Amino acid sequence: MKHCQLSGLCQAIGVVWSGEDKIITGLNTLDEATPSHVSFFNHEKHSAQLQKTQAAGVLIEARYAHLLPPHTAPLIADEPYLKLALASKLFRHTVTTKSQAPKIGVDCDIDPSVRFGCGVVIGDRVTILAGCYIGDDAVIGPDTMLYANVTLYHQTHIGARCIIHSGTVIGSDGYGFAQTKAGEHVKIYQNGNVIIENDVEIGANCAIDRGVFGATVIAQGSKLDNLVHIAHNCKVGAYALLTSQVGLAGSTTTGRNVVMGGQSGAAGHLHIGDFSTIAAKSGVTKSLKGYQTYAGFPAVEHRLWLKIQAKLSSLAKK
Amino acid sequence: MKHCQLSGLCQAIGVVWSGEDKIITGLNTLDEATPSHVSFFNHEKHSAQLQKTQAAGVLIEARYAHLLPPHTAPLIADEPYLKLALASKLFRHTVTTKSQAPKIGVDCDIDPSVRFGCGVVIGDRVTILAGCYIGDDAVIGPDTMLYANVTLYHQTHIGARCIIHSGTVIGSDGYGFAQTKAGEHVKIYQNGNVIIENDVEIGANCAIDRGVFGATVIAQGSKLDNLVHIAHNCKVGAYALLTSQVGLAGSTTTGRNVVMGGQSGAAGHLHIGDFSTIAAKSGVTKSLKGYQTYAGFPAVEHRLWLKIQAKLSSLAKK
Amino acid sequence: MKHCQLSGLCQAIGVVWSGEDKIITGLNTLDEATPSHVSFFNHEKHSAQLQKTQAAGVLIEARYAHLLPPHTAPLIADEPYLKLALASKLFRHTVTTKSQAPKIGVDCDIDPSVRFGCGVVIGDRVTILAGCYIGDDAVIGPDTMLYANVTLYHQTHIGARCIIHSGTVIGSDGYGFAQTKAGEHVKIYQNGNVIIENDVEIGANCAIDRGVFGATVIAQGSKLDNLVHIAHNCKVGAYALLTSQVGLAGSTTTGRNVVMGGQSGAAGHLHIGDFSTIAAKSGVTKSLKGYQTYAGFPAVEHRLWLKIQAKLSSLAKK
Repeated sequence: MKHCQLSGLCQAIGVVWSGEDKIITGLNTLDEATPSHVSFFNHEKHSAQLQKTQAAGVLIEARYAHLLPPHTAPLIADEPYLKLALASKLFRHTVTTKSQAPKIGVDCDIDPSVRFGCGVVIGDRVTILAGCYIGDDAVIGPDTMLYANVTLYHQTHIGARCIIHSGTVIGSDGYGFAQTKAGEHVKIYQNGNVIIENDVEIGANCAIDRGVFGATVIAQGSKLDNLVHIAHNCKVGAYALLTSQVGLAGSTTTGRNVVMGGQSGAAGHLHIGDFSTIAAKSGVTKSLKGYQTYAGFPAVEHRLWLKIQAKLSSLAKK
Repeated sequence: MKHCQLSGLCQAIGVVWSGEDKIITGLNTLDEATPSHVSFFNHEKHSAQLQKTQAAGVLIEARYAHLLPPHTAPLIADEPYLKLALASKLFRHTVTTKSQAPKIGVDCDIDPSVRFGCGVVIGDRVTILAGCYIGDDAVIGPDTMLYANVTLYHQTHIGARCIIHSGTVIGSDGYGFAQTKAGEHVKIYQNGNVIIENDVEIGANCAIDRGVFGATVIAQGSKLDNLVHIAHNCKVGAYALLTSQVGLAGSTTTGRNVVMGGQSGAAGHLHIGDFSTIAAKSGVTKSLKGYQTYAGFPAVEHRLWLKIQAKLSSLAKK
Repeated sequence: MKHCQLSGLCQAIGVVWSGEDKIITGLNTLDEATPSHVSFFNHEKHSAQLQKTQAAGVLIEARYAHLLPPHTAPLIADEPYLKLALASKLFRHTVTTKSQAPKIGVDCDIDPSVRFGCGVVIGDRVTILAGCYIGDDAVIGPDTMLYANVTLYHQTHIGARCIIHSGTVIGSDGYGFAQTKAGEHVKIYQNGNVIIENDVEIGANCAIDRGVFGATVIAQGSKLDNLVHIAHNCKVGAYALLTSQVGLAGSTTTGRNVVMGGQSGAAGHLHIGDFSTIAAKSGVTKSLKGYQTYAGFPAVEHRLWLKIQAKLSSLAKK
């Protein structure tokens, strides 16, 4: 894992800081930062988290610095999120074409055209068809099948008995950018990864992004149809059924046995409760309690949606 | 083709049965089952089909068994659909990396990086660019062009003069699962295939799933844009225009010269009549007669949709 | 570049013509045609453009021929658009598996499995991972990264410091067909290309079509998320943020710093003004002035959309 001194980090991104130096192993949110992480504060709605953070240092505007706990160094910046973007580059994994023979279990069937990065570990009885690419330090569990032309980025973890269909990409960069005052977008390097648990099946031409910090997770027994988009840091709960062309925006989580109909989607930073069913083409814009069916955009209880449709029909007849 | 004894099938999936043994060559719906097929009955709405089935045996709850015709053996199960899932595994094609030189017509231009399964047959003057994968027993008609990184699963049939753009996947598994009482999803192996007729063009990064039984069909002269999803057992009629990001759910069929606008979709098990035009972003939720334009979600006649929009506008002005 | 005599073109597509012969280098719209282009007139709404065209000749019905300027030859046809389709074939690039070592800059890192067409030019410090395909005459700027299994069609231009994620296809054919009276679709060969400017990032499994004539352009600093569709001849302005599953239909252009939410789309031949924000799932059906937020389908000002939603909610409560 990449790491640096806090002093070095500050120097690299142009933040003035002095104090006791520490080794920093990465970036994270205020909530999830450990004492070896640097975090950031860019919105007042996160004030409560500020006071409880374990972070070694927090990128923060001067006027908020007094809210930090004593063990956390203020890293003063006018635009903390932009500085975060700069800092993220320090922890990025450098992807190259360097290749190393993977560690392979027994009875595997791997096409000679498959290309591996370094440090790949493959379980027993894994099948990987032609044209797949398996990035550095990826792990594939036993009895898993990768059809042709699947791409796993570095550090992707695939569980046991999974089936990944052709064209699917797992571990691509999440969509995260900081904006400059001039309207330019500065990349926040996505240094997390993707974890696919056991017994997951993923259809063709899906895209599952790696976490910005931490992991994007597809929990056990979930089944994704074709052309599904899962953004960074989503946690799809166990036994989900995400049908074709569904999209989940960043950091949205679902409970267990959630069903989403075709071409439906959810905004970011929501929770979709256990046993929610989302009708086709719906758009979820706030968190849902679950144990029922929702429909429409914005998604509401299905019963209510039917009522709205009935009213519209009768309106049209007038 | 895979086959087994009916007795062996029952033993493998834990169904008690005795009677005259038969060779079973596959599974199918009540309607389409032949005397060498096993079928299933899991919903009362299919009662009429039950009485007319040709199936050798039907997975069925005991209370419905008396509805079967005399030539059809009752295969009694509390959860017939789950047993179907187990049985489907017996007929699956085992996909491996085993490769065999394909039978190739004259004047073909095939990149040396293309990987073939066994038993592939390629017509005259076919071009296949780098990175394509052509699975077992696939057939490609004359004068067809596959751009780079196309994936054809086993048993896919492509007609003459077709153009398949990069990243497109044809023949991936349909999305079919039986549910256990615990909420787990058990795979129904997709043992059908895909048939693309002559003069079809398919855009980039589409996904066309193989049939669960029988074929998914794209009929002659149809043109698909990019990122289109076609689920298992759809039959897209001749001269269709399916524009980008369209999705068809399972078993939906269309007449001829159907046009679907961008990001529109249709639910499963519907028929969209000849010369239907579906406006962009619409969602078809019931079968349509055709020869006109439909819009909205749920999709209605375009004229009605315009009326609803006008009412909404005037409402907003109040 | 392909070219032919005007006389040869007319003969090839079955148009009777006599006059002073010229070398024709391609086809184009009335507006953009140069004196070495042939153009077409198939709708009265383009009459104004007809009078100002620079084209060497225009495919046109006899009854409109008198509207042409004196320097432009009338190429009389009952179905000019069908003749255009036939003519487009004359200028198509013949794609083959022929390969040639590309011209490569310093300090590049290119996987040996990458396949190149002829005439490819690659800048300094470019990384290209396994399974990519780079078509004839493609150009890749310095410091650009192509993740595994990216496909660039012939003549695609990628700028400096771009990041293209896996599975993305750039330069596939635009979706253009002329219809016969029998309802068949005749391909209009897409002889333009795609230009990706500097500092663009494109997510996984996107599809960006080449221009029919001229270029499809993604301007500098734009960031596309996963599964985005960009049709032929779109011009995405600088610093756009197009999030996942967005679709732009043909020839639509955007100003700078346009933001489009997930699963939103725009119809063809529109302009979306500078600093427009389009909410998720919206569908843009007419040109937008910009500098504000739009929502819904058809997309309206966000304020108005909220009002409509409120009215719907109160209707449902009645």
